[in-house]
Amino acid sequence: MSKKIVIVGGVAGGATAAARLRRMNEEDEIVVLEKGEYISFANCGLPYYIGGVITNRDALLVQTVEGMSKKFNLDIRNLSEATSIDREKKTITVTKVETGETYEESYDYAILSPGARPIVPPFEGLEEAENVFTLRNIPDTDQIKAWVDERKPHHAVVIGGGFIGLEMAENLAERGIHVQLVELSDQVMAPVDREMAGYLHEELQNNGVELILQDGVDAFLDRGKKVKLNSGKELVSDMTIMSIGVRPESELAKDAGLTLGERGGIVVDEHLKTSDASIYALGDAVEVKDYIQNTPTMVPLAWPANRQGRLVADHIHGKNVSYNGTLGTAVAKIFDLTVASTGNNEKTLRRLGVNYEAVHVHPASNATYYPGGAAIALKLLFDPETGQIFGAQAVGRKGVEKRIDVIATAIKGKLTVEDLPDLELSYAPPYSSAKDPVNVAGYAALNIIEGEAEIVHHHEIDDIVREGGTLIDVREPEEFESGNIVGAINIPLGALRNRLEDLPKNKPIHVHCQVGLRGYLATRILKNNGFRAINLSGGYKTYSTATK
Amino acid sequence: MSKKIVIVGGVAGGATAAARLRRMNEEDEIVVLEKGEYISFANCGLPYYIGGVITNRDALLVQTVEGMSKKFNLDIRNLSEATSIDREKKTITVTKVETGETYEESYDYAILSPGARPIVPPFEGLEEAENVFTLRNIPDTDQIKAWVDERKPHHAVVIGGGFIGLEMAENLAERGIHVQLVELSDQVMAPVDREMAGYLHEELQNNGVELILQDGVDAFLDRGKKVKLNSGKELVSDMTIMSIGVRPESELAKDAGLTLGERGGIVVDEHLKTSDASIYALGDAVEVKDYIQNTPTMVPLAWPANRQGRLVADHIHGKNVSYNGTLGTAVAKIFDLTVASTGNNEKTLRRLGVNYEAVHVHPASNATYYPGGAAIALKLLFDPETGQIFGAQAVGRKGVEKRIDVIATAIKGKLTVEDLPDLELSYAPPYSSAKDPVNVAGYAALNIIEGEAEIVHHHEIDDIVREGGTLIDVREPEEFESGNIVGAINIPLGALRNRLEDLPKNKPIHVHCQVGLRGYLATRILKNNGFRAINLSGGYKTYSTATK
Repeated sequence: MSKKIVIVGGVAGGATAAARLRRMNEEDEIVVLEKGEYISFANCGLPYYIGGVITNRDALLVQTVEGMSKKFNLDIRNLSEATSIDREKKTITVTKVETGETYEESYDYAILSPGARPIVPPFEGLEEAENVFTLRNIPDTDQIKAWVDERKPHHAVVIGGGFIGLEMAENLAERGIHVQLVELSDQVMAPVDREMAGYLHEELQNNGVELILQDGVDAFLDRGKKVKLNSGKELVSDMTIMSIGVRPESELAKDAGLTLGERGGIVVDEHLKTSDASIYALGDAVEVKDYIQNTPTMVPLAWPANRQGRLVADHIHGKNVSYNGTLGTAVAKIFDLTVASTGNNEKTLRRLGVNYEAVHVHPASNATYYPGGAAIALKLLFDPETGQIFGAQAVGRKGVEKRIDVIATAIKGKLTVEDLPDLELSYAPPYSSAKDPVNVAGYAALNIIEGEAEIVHHHEIDDIVREGGTLIDVREPEEFESGNIVGAINIPLGALRNRLEDLPKNKPIHVHCQVGLRGYLATRILKNNGFRAINLSGGYKTYSTATK
Repeated sequence: MSKKIVIVGGVAGGATAAARLRRMNEEDEIVVLEKGEYISFANCGLPYYIGGVITNRDALLVQTVEGMSKKFNLDIRNLSEATSIDREKKTITVTKVETGETYEESYDYAILSPGARPIVPPFEGLEEAENVFTLRNIPDTDQIKAWVDERKPHHAVVIGGGFIGLEMAENLAERGIHVQLVELSDQVMAPVDREMAGYLHEELQNNGVELILQDGVDAFLDRGKKVKLNSGKELVSDMTIMSIGVRPESELAKDAGLTLGERGGIVVDEHLKTSDASIYALGDAVEVKDYIQNTPTMVPLAWPANRQGRLVADHIHGKNVSYNGTLGTAVAKIFDLTVASTGNNEKTLRRLGVNYEAVHVHPASNATYYPGGAAIALKLLFDPETGQIFGAQAVGRKGVEKRIDVIATAIKGKLTVEDLPDLELSYAPPYSSAKDPVNVAGYAALNIIEGEAEIVHHHEIDDIVREGGTLIDVREPEEFESGNIVGAINIPLGALRNRLEDLPKNKPIHVHCQVGLRGYLATRILKNNGFRAINLSGGYKTYSTATK
């Protein structure tokens, strides 16, 4: 018997569900309600169209209403907002956006894919400002692009250093606009930890983006031409992008009495069913489980929405499929840098009180003798007892997201850090080294688990030195001269074996080098000679970046 | 108690073992015997130095004898060949290469890391030819580079289309030399299957390399200035590179009575011990287990050698570690193309009589609306019953080896093709799509396992049409016009639902599109309307490339 399925929201997960539903069955009636003009557009490409990297606006329209309707035999209705659900009658009230007319649409199953919308607090002066924008959809994009093209702004303020804020900062800067990026916390790109964000801060500044951390908007003055911050600072702005985060569009679900989570996301079970067995929900609007910790979380990213769209369609068609939680694997381009991450970060683990350990390594993306290689700052978080991988973060110029994808796959395969050295990854000089960066991170973690290496972290070392600890910098004198940790004594690695008598045996010796490798070798020499030696994980590079 | 460990061979795995042994223990006497002048050099970089991509010769010398001796407190002896082993006495006879002097060196443990040498059959005229080279080490490299720099050859012949042959063909071509590449089989790059090699053939030819397949050397004429092939063809040659393969340097092991495998590799157990408990062996000279099939094989690659070096050192120091077999994950750059593979290829599976299925997909490396993306030809081999992943191959211009590394990791994590759609991989427009190519391959395989899609392969379709089968090409008319399969009928996907009455219900309908996706959609429409529909895996692209 054929079914009638109504999908609310025709972008990302909603569009995926619709296409999959049709592939499963030719007879079902599939209605897609989209309140905007466009369906299935390239949300993630919008900043790049504004920046001129993507030049063809049509390229953003992945599927058109007409094209997709025909290809998949769907009843797609754009400019049609689902305004209420009568769960008893199994009907949805649809309001035509242009006319305000309403009508009822019945369903056997409803799929809610409403997405999330930018958070815009009611700042003083905001209503009078015509130069403040948010970026969610094609009309937003057209507005911002027109403003840039026609008004030729000199100064832009971007509020919020998340994915959209960073991508907009880059794209506006690429258009020659002076950008000030304002972020309430002490770092951009919340998915990575503070010391990893240091590389991004540096890259932004090197590309002319002015970073204003630990500050936020207080008010918009002079019709938005000035942005007053909490600190009292006033920024001149020809245009302001508000990108402080998103909030699930869960009002429809809430009004229908469906269960919502603490942060306003629609609660769904492992089959993506809401508290009403005839209504599924997916995408940015739903609360998901953190794949690692099983705690509730919200992850407004494209991969989960897409995956969930498929699974909902399959589940409606009787397949016993489940969505097993979200790792939050993510990547962003920040000028010439790539930053990527998967799983839990250190902030999360600390907040949850999880027993974890972290290693920082800086292997080269590919053979150092082959041109174009660049160091990758790679951080791996794991359980020091079981070796379970909690998460990883990486920043660099080449091969960054590859390593995060490999680790994300290792997590799904329930591999531990002990398995990482065993990953047989492809090597030729343009692509990697015989020991891939992921192998290197695995070795570093394994050395700790097996008690072969003891480490200390970038944020602990100043206190240790202050309290009279011994810190040996095993780099060469030139490296030491060009920047060092206060209190460190320089004994190059090559000289260490001849200087053992100078070192105290009654207390631990902390050592460090530039990136961690020579420091590790030094700890092995010391340890094998009866000292207790502790290496600074990630070396001077991680230490010095953590405060950038 | 301290031990004395003698390592035969100071490159790759031997050097790794030496360094690791020292990290494990400061007291042991560690002797490294290397018959060549150089240790631990960048074997994989040699072609690129000849080609001028790597300009600094010193960069090839990853470790020098002096530097490494000092850094790791090792007794490294270059130009010192181990010429025999007395296993009773536990001594190795060492011959000084320059003087012929010999002496004996005792050991508690010996580690054999002799590598493999290029196979050079005794071709007629070879002895008189001074322009025929093999490439294994720094002196070979110096010779070839000097020849190119000084003699300025116009015509080069490369014999053998494996890694070294292809890299040399590219690097000689980059120096402006006309290259003819001669390969005995019907394809270059044996690790991938014939239809995947088609992309490489095309790329080589587009870059001026003349491909001569299914032909081999018969004799060298005129002091090597002519290369006569088995076909009778004679090639003018100013220089010839012999790169038809390598053979393990296992004579020392053989003479010492250690067990060798059928192909001449040193047989080792899972701890890399030879048939003598005091002698370990590793690298290109040993026989390993195929990770997937557990059959014996030889895989002369850098990753296994490096990994094994570490494991041998650890095992000597009492760690219960094992080497679990080799996947053979590999990658090569062929001009602007990248080709990568892991696990078993179709040729191997067929030879072993394994029940397998293959899918070919052609997803884009990253969002198609973002500049710089390019299709990846991705082939996935799997068990149609259990979903076990047997192997994967990929060719393209961007993001190729990333996908193979992800699949190699999935294999190590014992994930099946059913898990591939669930891999949460990083996405932003410059890097991937919301559905990553690996997810796409997983969906394609899963559709087959679940009976949702039936496929036919590129090598089967001509016979099917010849025997009266129905083949529908669902591409647009322009695409059909620009090249099609003989016997195919063009019904574009968008018109299919209106043309159902024209199609036979009493026999299977084969369909194809350009890359496989629209073909799959067509089979779903047909199947849901009561037809038996079979899609050509990989579409016209795979079909047409298979004969290139």
